[in-house]
Amino acid sequence: MQYRFLGNTGTKVSVIALGGWLTHGGHTGNEVAKQTMKAAYEAGVNFFDSAEGYAGGRAEKLLGEAIKEFGWDRDDLVISTKLYWGEHEDGSKDVGLSRKHVLAGMRKSLQRLQMEFVDIVYAHRPDKHTPMEEVVRAFNHLIHKGQAIYWGTSEWSSEEIMDAWRIADKLNLIGPVVEQPEYNMISRTRVEIEYAPLYRKFNLGLTVFSPLRRGILTGKYNKGIPSGSRADKEGSWFKEEVEKGGDMLERVSRLEPLAKELGEGITTGQLALAWTLKHPNVSSAIIGATSVEQVRENLKAVELVEKIDKGLMDRIDEVLGNRPEGVPFRFD
Amino acid sequence: MQYRFLGNTGTKVSVIALGGWLTHGGHTGNEVAKQTMKAAYEAGVNFFDSAEGYAGGRAEKLLGEAIKEFGWDRDDLVISTKLYWGEHEDGSKDVGLSRKHVLAGMRKSLQRLQMEFVDIVYAHRPDKHTPMEEVVRAFNHLIHKGQAIYWGTSEWSSEEIMDAWRIADKLNLIGPVVEQPEYNMISRTRVEIEYAPLYRKFNLGLTVFSPLRRGILTGKYNKGIPSGSRADKEGSWFKEEVEKGGDMLERVSRLEPLAKELGEGITTGQLALAWTLKHPNVSSAIIGATSVEQVRENLKAVELVEKIDKGLMDRIDEVLGNRPEGVPFRFD
Amino acid sequence: MQYRFLGNTGTKVSVIALGGWLTHGGHTGNEVAKQTMKAAYEAGVNFFDSAEGYAGGRAEKLLGEAIKEFGWDRDDLVISTKLYWGEHEDGSKDVGLSRKHVLAGMRKSLQRLQMEFVDIVYAHRPDKHTPMEEVVRAFNHLIHKGQAIYWGTSEWSSEEIMDAWRIADKLNLIGPVVEQPEYNMISRTRVEIEYAPLYRKFNLGLTVFSPLRRGILTGKYNKGIPSGSRADKEGSWFKEEVEKGGDMLERVSRLEPLAKELGEGITTGQLALAWTLKHPNVSSAIIGATSVEQVRENLKAVELVEKIDKGLMDRIDEVLGNRPEGVPFRFD
Amino acid sequence: MQYRFLGNTGTKVSVIALGGWLTHGGHTGNEVAKQTMKAAYEAGVNFFDSAEGYAGGRAEKLLGEAIKEFGWDRDDLVISTKLYWGEHEDGSKDVGLSRKHVLAGMRKSLQRLQMEFVDIVYAHRPDKHTPMEEVVRAFNHLIHKGQAIYWGTSEWSSEEIMDAWRIADKLNLIGPVVEQPEYNMISRTRVEIEYAPLYRKFNLGLTVFSPLRRGILTGKYNKGIPSGSRADKEGSWFKEEVEKGGDMLERVSRLEPLAKELGEGITTGQLALAWTLKHPNVSSAIIGATSVEQVRENLKAVELVEKIDKGLMDRIDEVLGNRPEGVPFRFD
Repeated sequence: MQYRFLGNTGTKVSVIALGGWLTHGGHTGNEVAKQTMKAAYEAGVNFFDSAEGYAGGRAEKLLGEAIKEFGWDRDDLVISTKLYWGEHEDGSKDVGLSRKHVLAGMRKSLQRLQMEFVDIVYAHRPDKHTPMEEVVRAFNHLIHKGQAIYWGTSEWSSEEIMDAWRIADKLNLIGPVVEQPEYNMISRTRVEIEYAPLYRKFNLGLTVFSPLRRGILTGKYNKGIPSGSRADKEGSWFKEEVEKGGDMLERVSRLEPLAKELGEGITTGQLALAWTLKHPNVSSAIIGATSVEQVRENLKAVELVEKIDKGLMDRIDEVLGNRPEGVPFRFD
Repeated sequence: MQYRFLGNTGTKVSVIALGGWLTHGGHTGNEVAKQTMKAAYEAGVNFFDSAEGYAGGRAEKLLGEAIKEFGWDRDDLVISTKLYWGEHEDGSKDVGLSRKHVLAGMRKSLQRLQMEFVDIVYAHRPDKHTPMEEVVRAFNHLIHKGQAIYWGTSEWSSEEIMDAWRIADKLNLIGPVVEQPEYNMISRTRVEIEYAPLYRKFNLGLTVFSPLRRGILTGKYNKGIPSGSRADKEGSWFKEEVEKGGDMLERVSRLEPLAKELGEGITTGQLALAWTLKHPNVSSAIIGATSVEQVRENLKAVELVEKIDKGLMDRIDEVLGNRPEGVPFRFD
Repeated sequence: MQYRFLGNTGTKVSVIALGGWLTHGGHTGNEVAKQTMKAAYEAGVNFFDSAEGYAGGRAEKLLGEAIKEFGWDRDDLVISTKLYWGEHEDGSKDVGLSRKHVLAGMRKSLQRLQMEFVDIVYAHRPDKHTPMEEVVRAFNHLIHKGQAIYWGTSEWSSEEIMDAWRIADKLNLIGPVVEQPEYNMISRTRVEIEYAPLYRKFNLGLTVFSPLRRGILTGKYNKGIPSGSRADKEGSWFKEEVEKGGDMLERVSRLEPLAKELGEGITTGQLALAWTLKHPNVSSAIIGATSVEQVRENLKAVELVEKIDKGLMDRIDEVLGNRPEGVPFRFD
Repeated sequence: MQYRFLGNTGTKVSVIALGGWLTHGGHTGNEVAKQTMKAAYEAGVNFFDSAEGYAGGRAEKLLGEAIKEFGWDRDDLVISTKLYWGEHEDGSKDVGLSRKHVLAGMRKSLQRLQMEFVDIVYAHRPDKHTPMEEVVRAFNHLIHKGQAIYWGTSEWSSEEIMDAWRIADKLNLIGPVVEQPEYNMISRTRVEIEYAPLYRKFNLGLTVFSPLRRGILTGKYNKGIPSGSRADKEGSWFKEEVEKGGDMLERVSRLEPLAKELGEGITTGQLALAWTLKHPNVSSAIIGATSVEQVRENLKAVELVEKIDKGLMDRIDEVLGNRPEGVPFRFD
C-alpha cells in the first residue's frame, strides 16, 4: 500500500480508501461487507469513508460494528463521514447544513459509529439556504468539540470552497482541507481545471469517488448492458449513461490493450483506478466493493501508478479524447 | 434620466453611461465625440467611462479636455477608468496589475484626464501572474491616496472576485464594489447565473458594456452586413460574429414587433438597451455613440424600463431562446 | 531548592527537574525509579518530565503510578510530556505533529499518566511534513480542552520557533513558551547564540536536557570507558563520543580543581550542572537518576549557582575553550 | 534579454541587473559608468541597483543624472536603492534602520536620484538595535507614501526575514518580498539551504550580488594576483581571499573546459554568471561593470542559462566540491 498526505495536513491516508456508498448497509450483505473491510485493512487500507445519508445510517452502523468486532486500534484508522442528508428517528428528513443539523447529525453519526470522533467530516453538498458563515462556524464547532479532526466538502464548486475560505480566513477559523468530488476518466473538468486555483492557494486535497464511474470503466458494459443486471432497468441512471455514452464505451474498450502493456492480466479497471492517482492532488481514491475478490483486484492498481509514465498518460488522453483545455498560470 | 446606486455604495450613477471605447480618440472625430458627451450630460448622464488602454490613452485625454472645456463641476460627475493595458512613452507596453503598473498607470491616467481623482478605477482584466494580495493592496493604495473613490473589476470570474474579497476581508481592506462585464440579450450567463452569489454576498454592482452587442441588437445587420460598413472587412470580429449568428439575427428581427408594442417608433435597439436595465444589479449600461443623434436615440430607452413587464420579459425570452438555466436560491 | 519562572509564564518550577528518559520504564528498576522521584520531591523538586516516546509509554505509566501511590497533590506538581513518537496498540508507530496524532497522543499520554492534564506539552521535534498552522492550532486545542496548561517545543531551530510565533500571533493563538534543548558545557551554541533573539522577543524559557552530557561531564569517562559499562559497546553512541572527545575529556578533567574551590567534595558533575543554571533563560535543568544517591548528589548543585561568579565562569570558559562567538545586541 | 518576476510580485526584472557598487561614483569614471548603463539598457536591462551607502551617495547621483540625460521613461525601469549607511551633510554618519533614519535616508536618496519613488527599497543590513516592528512599520510607511513600490532586505538571516513577516502578518502590513544576498559558486549555503523555507512560505525573490565573487570566478586570479592590480595590496580583502582560496582557484580553473562545451569563446565567468540564474528563486543577478565591453561579455551569460542542463550542473558540482547538504522537505 502507498500513503499520501491528506491535502495540506500532516495526516497520511492510504491511496485507496474503502467507501460504504451502496455497499454498506445496502445491497451487499453485512457479512460480505465486513469481509471486504477486513481484506482492505489487511492490505494496508487505513481510510474508510461513510455518510449519514448512506442507507439511512446503516452504512455507518455497519462500519462501527466491524471496527469493534475486529478490535482495530481507532488511532490507526482514518474514518470519515458526511453530513447533509439526515433523518429523524421517525423517518422524516433533516436535510442541509444549518448549525442545528450539523450538530445533531454529527452526534447521531458518532452514536452509529460508536466513536468519540471522526477524522474527517464532510459537508456532503453545498447548502444554498444556509449562510456560509453558519456552515463554516458549525464545522469548526465540531472540530473544537473534538468530534472531528478535519473538515472538508463534497461536490462544492471552487467558488463555494473559496467562499468558505474567505469566511474562515476572516474569522481566523479552520478552512476545509479536502474535497470529495467525482473523478474518473470520464468526468475530469472539475478536478483538472476548476479546482486548479485551489491547489495553489490552499493545497487542497481530494478524496475522489466513483474512480471507475460505477463500473463503466471496468469495461463490463462495453458490449452493452447484461440483461438482468443492475443497469438493466428502465429509466435507471446506469442505463441512461451507458446508452448515451456509446462513444465513450467504445473508447474504454480501446484502453484494454494499454492496460495489458502494464503487465499480464492487468485490467482496464485497474488502469482506470491507477490513472486517478496520477493527479498530484488526489490523496485517495474511494472504491466500493461487493466482494473480497473485488477489493484485491482493485488494490493491484496501487503498484501501477509508478508504471504509468508521461507517454502512457498521453496515449490514454488520445484514446479518451476529453483532455480539458486550460492554461497553466503562475498563480493558479 | 434615472439614477441607481453603484452597487453597494452610496453613490448614484445615471442608468446610461457614456463610454469612450472605440469612439473617444478613435474613429469618431474629436469634435463629434465632445458633442455626444455634451448631449448626454444635458440629458442627465453623469457617468463617463474610459480606460488607459482605449486608443492608447487618447480616450482619456479627450474626456479630460471636454470636461475642462465645458466647465462642468467635477463633483457632479462620476468618472471611471481602467488599468491593465498601459503603454510607456516609447510605445512599449506595460501590462498587468503589478503594484508598479497600477501606481504608474493611475498617475498617467490622471495626467491625461487632468484630474486629481477618478470615481471608479477598474482592474481591466484579471492578472494571473500577480498575487491577489498585491492587486487588492494596490487598488486600496489608490483609494488611500485619494486617486480613486472606489475600485472594481472588469471581466473577472466570480471566483476571482470572491478571492479578491477574501483577501480584502482578511486584511480589513476595501473590496471591489463593481464589475464591468459584457451584458446584452446575446451574452447572458455570466451576469444572470455566474455572478448571482456575488449579488447576495456583496451586493455587487454592474456597469455593463456592449449592451447592444456592438450594434447587432439594433437590427442593423439583420439583412446582412452593409457593404462598406465597419463590419465589412475580411476577418473582422464583426463579420465573423454576424455571419456565425445567422439564427440570432433572425431572432433579433423578431424582436422588432415587441419593441413596437412599447410605443410608436421604439426600435429594437432601444428595447435591447432597456432590457439590460431590467436586471436589478445593473447600475448602469455603458453606451458608445458616434453622433449626438445616437445618444438621444439611446437615452429614450430609459423610459422603457418601467414599461417592460414580466409578460414582455417572458416573450422576449421565448424569442431569444437563450434564458440560462439556474435555480434561484435564498443566498445566491 | 530554588524555583524559577517557566519562561514568560507565571508558573514556577524547581531549577532541577527529574526526567524519565532512559530511567523510567527503562533500565532502572521501577521501585528504584519511584524512590528517586520520592527523594527529589522531598528535596523540593516539583517538576517531572516525561514523553510518549520514552520506553514506549512505560515512562509515563511509571510516573502516573508513582504520583498516585505517593498521594501527592496534583496541583503541587508541574508535569510535562512530549508528543511526536507515538505508538499504536499493535506496536506500529504513529509519528509526527499532525492534528490527528497530537490529539490521539495527548489522550493516550493522559491515560497512562492517569491525569486530567499535563502542565506542559512539548512538540518533541519539529515536523517538516505538517503545516505550522496545523501544529500551532493542535497544541492550542489541547490547551483549550484543558489537557495542557502550556505548550512548548523540543529541539526546534530558532527559525521554526519564530515561525510558530508568527502563526500564533497572526491567529491570536498561544505561542510556545518553552523550549527543551540539550545544554551543557559541551553543547552550547544553540542556547547561547541561536536562541538569543527569542529570549528578547518572547522571553522564551528553557528546560534543558543532558546537562551532564550523559555522564561525560561527571568525569567518569575521563580515564576511558570502564569495561563492561553501558558505554562499552561497539558502535554505541557513548563510545563514539567518548573516543572522539579525547581533548574534551582532558579539559573536563581540568575542571575538577575548579569544582573543589567551591567546597570540599564538590564534584565536576555538580559544577557542570550548576553551570547550566547560570544561563538566565534556563528555567530548569532536567536530570535523570538511577539511584537516590545520584539524586541527592545532583541536587547539591543548586546551592552552587550563586557561588559561581563571573571570574569562575571566565576560568571555566578558558578551560573549555568553546565559548561561542556572538555579539550581545540590544534586541537580541 | 530574459525577464523574471521579482519574487512573489507581478513586476518583471531583467535577469541581469546593473549595480552601482564600487563602480558608480567610485573608481570607474562617470562617463564610462554612464556608457555601461546605456549599453545595458540597450541590451534590455531594465533593473538598476544602488544604495545610499555606495560612494557616499555619489552612486545614486550618477544613476539619477544618467537617467535624466538619456531621457528614459521612468516607468520602464526598475530602480532600487538600499538604506542603512547614511551620511549627514556634514559627513557624520547616520546608520541603521530607525524610523528616523529610514525616512530621512529615503528622502535624501530620492533627491540624489531625482525621482519620486524607487521600485525596491532594501534594508541594507539587519539592525539589531532597532525593534523589528519599527523597521517593518518604517518600510511600510515608505510604501504608503508612494516613495517605494516594494521593500526587501539585504544580508538578513532567514530567521530575521521570518521575524519581519511575523510582524507584518500580525499587523496586516506588507512583508519583504525580496532579499539581496551574495550568491555565487563559492558562497552557496545561505541561498541553497538557509533560505529554502522562505521560498516555500513567501515565494521570496532574490537579487543576488557578487555573482562572480569579485572577479575570482572569471579565472583572472587563477595564476595568482597580477602585480599592481587592485588585489595586489597588502591586507586587501582580495589578496586575503585569493591567497586563502588556493584550492578554490584550482577548481575554478577546471571549470574552463566545461564553459568551452557551451560554445566557442564562452568563458568561465559567463558560465559562473549563468549558473547563478539556474536557481529558480533568483530573479536577477547584479553585475558591476567597468567598461561597455564588460557589460556585453556578461550579458552573453543570459543565453547560456537554458543550455546548462542537469548533467552539466552535476559536473560543475563535482568540480566545485561544495554542494551544500540538506534534505528537501514537504513544507520547506
